[in-house]
Amino acid sequence: MSKVGVAGGSGFPDTEETTFFPAMDVKKVNERLTAAGQSHLLQFIEDVGEQERAELLRDLGGMDLQEINGFFHNAMKVSDHIKQEKVDERMEAVPREVLGSVTRDRDRLKDWEKEGLHRISQSKVAVLLLAGGQGTRLGVSYPKGMYDVGLPSHKTLFQIQAERILKLQRLADERFKTKCSVPWYIMTSGRTMDSTKEFFARHNYFGLKKENVIFFQQGMLPAMDYEGKIILEGKGKISMAPDGNGGLYRALGSQHIVDDMERREIGYIHVYCVDNILVKVADPTFIGFCVQKGADCGAKVVEKTNPTEPVGVVCRVDGRYQVVEYSEITLATAEKRSPDGRLMFNAGNIANHFFTLPFLRDVVNIYEPQLQHHVAQKKIPYVDMQGRLIKPDKPNGIKMEKFVFDIFQFAKTFVVYEVLREDEFSPLKNADSQNGKDNPTTARHALMSLHHRWVLTAGGHFIDENGTRVPAIPSLKDLTDLPIKCEISPLVSYGGEGLESIVKGREFHPTLIIDETGVHELVKNGI
Amino acid sequence: MSKVGVAGGSGFPDTEETTFFPAMDVKKVNERLTAAGQSHLLQFIEDVGEQERAELLRDLGGMDLQEINGFFHNAMKVSDHIKQEKVDERMEAVPREVLGSVTRDRDRLKDWEKEGLHRISQSKVAVLLLAGGQGTRLGVSYPKGMYDVGLPSHKTLFQIQAERILKLQRLADERFKTKCSVPWYIMTSGRTMDSTKEFFARHNYFGLKKENVIFFQQGMLPAMDYEGKIILEGKGKISMAPDGNGGLYRALGSQHIVDDMERREIGYIHVYCVDNILVKVADPTFIGFCVQKGADCGAKVVEKTNPTEPVGVVCRVDGRYQVVEYSEITLATAEKRSPDGRLMFNAGNIANHFFTLPFLRDVVNIYEPQLQHHVAQKKIPYVDMQGRLIKPDKPNGIKMEKFVFDIFQFAKTFVVYEVLREDEFSPLKNADSQNGKDNPTTARHALMSLHHRWVLTAGGHFIDENGTRVPAIPSLKDLTDLPIKCEISPLVSYGGEGLESIVKGREFHPTLIIDETGVHELVKNGI
Repeated sequence: MSKVGVAGGSGFPDTEETTFFPAMDVKKVNERLTAAGQSHLLQFIEDVGEQERAELLRDLGGMDLQEINGFFHNAMKVSDHIKQEKVDERMEAVPREVLGSVTRDRDRLKDWEKEGLHRISQSKVAVLLLAGGQGTRLGVSYPKGMYDVGLPSHKTLFQIQAERILKLQRLADERFKTKCSVPWYIMTSGRTMDSTKEFFARHNYFGLKKENVIFFQQGMLPAMDYEGKIILEGKGKISMAPDGNGGLYRALGSQHIVDDMERREIGYIHVYCVDNILVKVADPTFIGFCVQKGADCGAKVVEKTNPTEPVGVVCRVDGRYQVVEYSEITLATAEKRSPDGRLMFNAGNIANHFFTLPFLRDVVNIYEPQLQHHVAQKKIPYVDMQGRLIKPDKPNGIKMEKFVFDIFQFAKTFVVYEVLREDEFSPLKNADSQNGKDNPTTARHALMSLHHRWVLTAGGHFIDENGTRVPAIPSLKDLTDLPIKCEISPLVSYGGEGLESIVKGREFHPTLIIDETGVHELVKNGI
Repeated sequence: MSKVGVAGGSGFPDTEETTFFPAMDVKKVNERLTAAGQSHLLQFIEDVGEQERAELLRDLGGMDLQEINGFFHNAMKVSDHIKQEKVDERMEAVPREVLGSVTRDRDRLKDWEKEGLHRISQSKVAVLLLAGGQGTRLGVSYPKGMYDVGLPSHKTLFQIQAERILKLQRLADERFKTKCSVPWYIMTSGRTMDSTKEFFARHNYFGLKKENVIFFQQGMLPAMDYEGKIILEGKGKISMAPDGNGGLYRALGSQHIVDDMERREIGYIHVYCVDNILVKVADPTFIGFCVQKGADCGAKVVEKTNPTEPVGVVCRVDGRYQVVEYSEITLATAEKRSPDGRLMFNAGNIANHFFTLPFLRDVVNIYEPQLQHHVAQKKIPYVDMQGRLIKPDKPNGIKMEKFVFDIFQFAKTFVVYEVLREDEFSPLKNADSQNGKDNPTTARHALMSLHHRWVLTAGGHFIDENGTRVPAIPSLKDLTDLPIKCEISPLVSYGGEGLESIVKGREFHPTLIIDETGVHELVKNGI
């Protein structure tokens, strides 16, 4: 398999930015470009400086242009095909027998959790983090996992997730008298690899063992116009973008991650996306449910309750599981309801998946290479024939992506696990200045609200500045109203457990912080 | 029944601000005050000007101080009682047999709608609008119903509701070959009466007949400190507040509204709150459901899906229906679930009720006077013993209120009707500058999103500036993203009906406006 458009190297586990491909001379590159119908890429080669020229030639040298052209033609063909054929009539809801639910199967939860913890204690479970995206909408230039949403502790998303893994190892070890490890595979992109690795090293891997934190790198693909010409975003610079979170599978193969998992004798992998502050990393209940169901692939979902909520739904199409995006269906389909009044297609995808290692290996080696890329029409800044940079005001080209859920269709036993949004899903997408949804404020509030509920459930209480007990349900009449400030370190509690001995019968003034060093009440405006 | 604290007159149907009570001299008033333990109210009488003095004496003259003292003592007693006794253990969910649901009883909806329209066509249905509140949180000094949330048409809430009534009359008349009317009773407060009446007169009652729009006025009560002393907010001014939306019942009696309903031979009354831009005024399906169930009282609700959403829930307590406020219950109760996974207490109150006239008459004459006021602890600005105005930073007194739903307990046959939030409930509470929830932007978007869906359901389509069809579900990834701009006049469609002949198979550029004059596509930034 050739390396497609990986800007910089893609060695494993090290990925320093070195020139992997020997610089070819312009003539040789030009021949290859001409053969692939991409000779316009060298149109301005004489106008650019030494370094830019070298980088352009290196990037072009690293590209399999025929393969990229093939991706383009296949993707466009599939895209046309999809447009013609409505998916609506072929969709079927997830049947009850493949569904596990925290609200409808409450008598099973303890059993599933025990099963999952047992597998964890045997070091059979790995987690795989999708962290290739940059926080463009969030408005930062560094990896999203390094973002601090403004919790009292000022922990970053990476630290929160690392500490959850640490705590889970301890919980499994205590329960089963073992000494387990949960390896953490972190997929970055060419743009985020160095800063991510440096961040983890600087923070001493947040207490995890260095050898159990494994970085690898997602591939990149060039943006193309509707005629299949690769787009220049500068006279000497190709417009490149990561190849979608489904680029995971190609990267898992090319960078020998699957081999590493086999070496460690991993059985089950939990895949998730970096932006969800509530993510239950390696959630033992989810893993235990999937294992007991004998599933090779599973998806954690939240209930979609509003027909026009822009979320993809897990369903069957022609008998095979997939995620149908909100933009692909008609309103009538989105509004369909089951006899119980719930939306028929209500399994909202939250990028939170379970795979067995044998399934993942087959996906990497056999299935994924057969899949076409999806086409995303975009407004892509480009250099025109006269060398002027143009920022188009309507879509002028495409980016090609695969999605992590594209491979659900290959599962032999697929299961769905429904959890509560308020307990497990609050993604960080937008900057606060844009207000509204999925931003640092909503993420911070979601976590503090969850931890507030943990304290109440464990028998603790909160009192206000006048010494009056605060009602259990705060009067958050507006999104700008402030919830009770409460943060519990993952090192103290993974999912609300173990708090009774600390909080039962006690009254706390917010801000309340509970961490390994004890219980802290911060004065107002404190920390 | 004495008139309690109605600042200004309370004649019916006219309510001009005249001095109803003859001015008494200070000595006489002082005797009454001393007898009631409220003599501090005249403490600064010598310090204030002629007019303020006259107004204070007039206000005091209009108060039944013994009755107010009685309200205070009873309210505080009940308040202590409630604090001691948790309601949680006595709560029962609404049983399925008294519940009608737009999602679970779809085969009944047409029948209920026909029943309701039939009653409307017989002029048996009236609507009663609760519009006594001022838009304090909204940040305006005029009645909320006069607010323009920024729709393309710039219609106010009052106009939207008036046009829905007009359209409903026409729909009923067409269906049953009648000439019906739906009288509209509008409860204002002393603070909003004049501007409300003037607004309706200026707009010619939005096409309704003047005699079918009947204004009346909610009572006021003084704020009191914890010892039962009435609070002065100025040296010559008593701190007054409306007596809660449950003040409705007292006002219905004292201002002879029930008599007017009887004169008109009304059978059923739909009560609702002014701030809900999606309100289906006199919703025939809701009315038909209640009528067919033989109910004397009914509540329209939306499903509460998040345990900590700050909304009251309709349920039974000790076998009687009531609304339990979110602040009254424990988290454990709020999180209780039925076997189907739904929250057990999920009937979210949206201040949208049905009464038969006989029930309403009994409430006014018999039941409501037995009810105690609720106590709301507030930070109330006051004049201290030295005559200085103090703005307290913690609660220092109470306001006394009754709630419109306090009388559910007296119903012989109570029913609950569950509708979809996205179709029927989007209240206007907060100003846009506060962002987030229940503000002019969310109200505007909720209405345009509903009308967008009406067009799609009727077979119309939207196209963007490039001529591409817009997906049915818009990618509103953030609350600040803009929905399709689409507004359909209530005079064209009350609830989505009658649009096929106008839109089916057609493509529209937003902004789309459909009104009595036709179909209009406005250029961007237009109107």
